[in-house]
Amino acid sequence: MPYVNIKVTREGVTADQKIELIRGVTDLLAQVLDKNPATTFVVIDEVEMENWGIGGLPCEEYRKSQQS
Amino acid sequence: MPYVNIKVTREGVTADQKIELIRGVTDLLAQVLDKNPATTFVVIDEVEMENWGIGGLPCEEYRKSQQS
Amino acid sequence: MPYVNIKVTREGVTADQKIELIRGVTDLLAQVLDKNPATTFVVIDEVEMENWGIGGLPCEEYRKSQQS
Amino acid sequence: MPYVNIKVTREGVTADQKIELIRGVTDLLAQVLDKNPATTFVVIDEVEMENWGIGGLPCEEYRKSQQS
Amino acid sequence: MPYVNIKVTREGVTADQKIELIRGVTDLLAQVLDKNPATTFVVIDEVEMENWGIGGLPCEEYRKSQQS
Amino acid sequence: MPYVNIKVTREGVTADQKIELIRGVTDLLAQVLDKNPATTFVVIDEVEMENWGIGGLPCEEYRKSQQS
Repeated sequence: MPYVNIKVTREGVTADQKIELIRGVTDLLAQVLDKNPATTFVVIDEVEMENWGIGGLPCEEYRKSQQS
Repeated sequence: MPYVNIKVTREGVTADQKIELIRGVTDLLAQVLDKNPATTFVVIDEVEMENWGIGGLPCEEYRKSQQS
Repeated sequence: MPYVNIKVTREGVTADQKIELIRGVTDLLAQVLDKNPATTFVVIDEVEMENWGIGGLPCEEYRKSQQS
Repeated sequence: MPYVNIKVTREGVTADQKIELIRGVTDLLAQVLDKNPATTFVVIDEVEMENWGIGGLPCEEYRKSQQS
Repeated sequence: MPYVNIKVTREGVTADQKIELIRGVTDLLAQVLDKNPATTFVVIDEVEMENWGIGGLPCEEYRKSQQS
Repeated sequence: MPYVNIKVTREGVTADQKIELIRGVTDLLAQVLDKNPATTFVVIDEVEMENWGIGGLPCEEYRKSQQS
């Protein structure tokens, strides 16, 4: 009965992409650990860009700093 | 000083229902573990339906599949 | 299909107390939100005392500071 | 490669305050544990007031009860 | 820069199985959302059996109740 | 009443370093958002090395791959 939480930045993830993530993670747990999909939860959190920090900066600033 | 996180799908949970959840969980921790309500936190997360997967499907699709 | 995470300090919570917490939270979600117990997960995390801070101190130090 | 999650009530946290939180936590982990900022994630969750309980009450009710 | 948390019961997950989970989830996020593996974190939590509840029971009791 | 969760790899974090993390984060939230330390929780999770993935590898393997 696994519980999986996926956090990504909110940047236009589509409903179809969410379906792929849910199916992909559920299949992976069934294959690797023989977990029952009926009791596998997957919760996706979409986090506002300004709420996600990396390298000591909000992620948009960080990405710009990496490109320059 | 417990911390409790309740995740449910976003399906019209009312303010009164949230009050009941907060009070119920806080009382339970006081009764079972003698925890002080003043330092018991309860955080409720309401998760969009398409962001919650079960059985390898978004939960609305899963529910439909169970009914048929 | 709720997911509930209960974090408490590791201070000798017994197996029976865990059973009470699991049943209590599951019943609460069934009563307040009509959630199906069969798809209600409760995960209890027991956190080492020195890993839990409150008032800017590890919790044991904090409790001592409150008593004096 | 630390991961830090900061949960606060949604009460008008500004973009500048978020920058300060991200930088402050990242610096702290570099100073105390010599962690590399490039692989330090900070995720801020802003929680609706009615979804945060303390003392068995939603936090606004709790604050009022403390003032009286 | 995704963050994924996988919670499973502690039942002898091997180091090789963990490697498969980490690689599988990282590949999935690269394929579906074009996320950079270098900033994809996967954290696996192994939860004691008596700390995981489902159906209002610790998971071992729940499994027994399903078999009978 | 903030809640902060810090996840780091389990690599010999000392009790004194935990005190510094708890105090540092609590001070930061008081300075930036005027949060009351008495209702600021900090929970530190130390994650086994083989349970933390980055770049599609357990973190020890990842570090080796970066050095070569």
